[in-house]
Amino acid sequence: MFVLGIDPGLSRCGYGVVEARGRKAEAVSIGVIRTPPSDPLPQRLARLQRELRALIAEFRPDAVAVERVFFQNNVRTAMGTAQAAGLAMAEGAAFGAEVIEYTPNQVKEAVGGWGAADKEQMQRMVQSLLSLPEPPRPADAADAAAVALCHIAHAPFASRARAAT
Amino acid sequence: MFVLGIDPGLSRCGYGVVEARGRKAEAVSIGVIRTPPSDPLPQRLARLQRELRALIAEFRPDAVAVERVFFQNNVRTAMGTAQAAGLAMAEGAAFGAEVIEYTPNQVKEAVGGWGAADKEQMQRMVQSLLSLPEPPRPADAADAAAVALCHIAHAPFASRARAAT
Repeated sequence: MFVLGIDPGLSRCGYGVVEARGRKAEAVSIGVIRTPPSDPLPQRLARLQRELRALIAEFRPDAVAVERVFFQNNVRTAMGTAQAAGLAMAEGAAFGAEVIEYTPNQVKEAVGGWGAADKEQMQRMVQSLLSLPEPPRPADAADAAAVALCHIAHAPFASRARAAT
Repeated sequence: MFVLGIDPGLSRCGYGVVEARGRKAEAVSIGVIRTPPSDPLPQRLARLQRELRALIAEFRPDAVAVERVFFQNNVRTAMGTAQAAGLAMAEGAAFGAEVIEYTPNQVKEAVGGWGAADKEQMQRMVQSLLSLPEPPRPADAADAAAVALCHIAHAPFASRARAAT
């Protein structure tokens, strides 16, 4: 199973393609899509959409897992984040992948073992779970890989839940 | 000049294709794209994206004018509205159209003559400007046509401003 994890953002949108084989998870491609803050918003959105579509076409994920956006902090940033998440969900669903949102706490609990793990602990957990020589950088890339790992942790239960209905 | 006006929304996304010929404006296609609230969010976003893309491919607008989203009321609704606006802007820019956001007040001022026009006054102004037998329904469709008319009102000044720089 290939899972594309997305840490949505307009300036930096983290992505992490992770392959799950039985109980092992392997990093396939981890990185960040950037759009220049100096560009007009429509061009930035179109560019992000294009790059997300190219990623999905290249790795053909079975599932796209997107970190859910909340509006706590800067509303201007939150708007861009919501729009980036929307593009990722639309592209994932248009491709035919299963698309699921996870809250930041679900990601932390699945990957860090509890909801209170800090950024650095999360990055080390991602490094360890994916057997990487060092934590993925930048942080958005590591966060995206964590979202993919969260889906992999949840997927067996989700399938069982579906089978039971 | 063909202008596609968008009143973004996830449950009901209003659109209005308006053709400007000199000082006259003509309604080409006005309506609403709906996505079922009972569908999962990613499917709704993918469907809206697909229909927006089809609209743009059919009418080949020179400009896509999108009403700017603010976060005043329900955050849950605002999120869907922001994501719908993001999809419209991305599709417009990907097609190569000029994409511009207008605030609700800019739309009201351009179409209603002043920022305090109420919903019904706006709908009657749209009806009158487009010489329609009755106000466009539902309200989201009329609002989208108003956004297109706002761009048509602004476009000569915008071009002059660009030429002057």
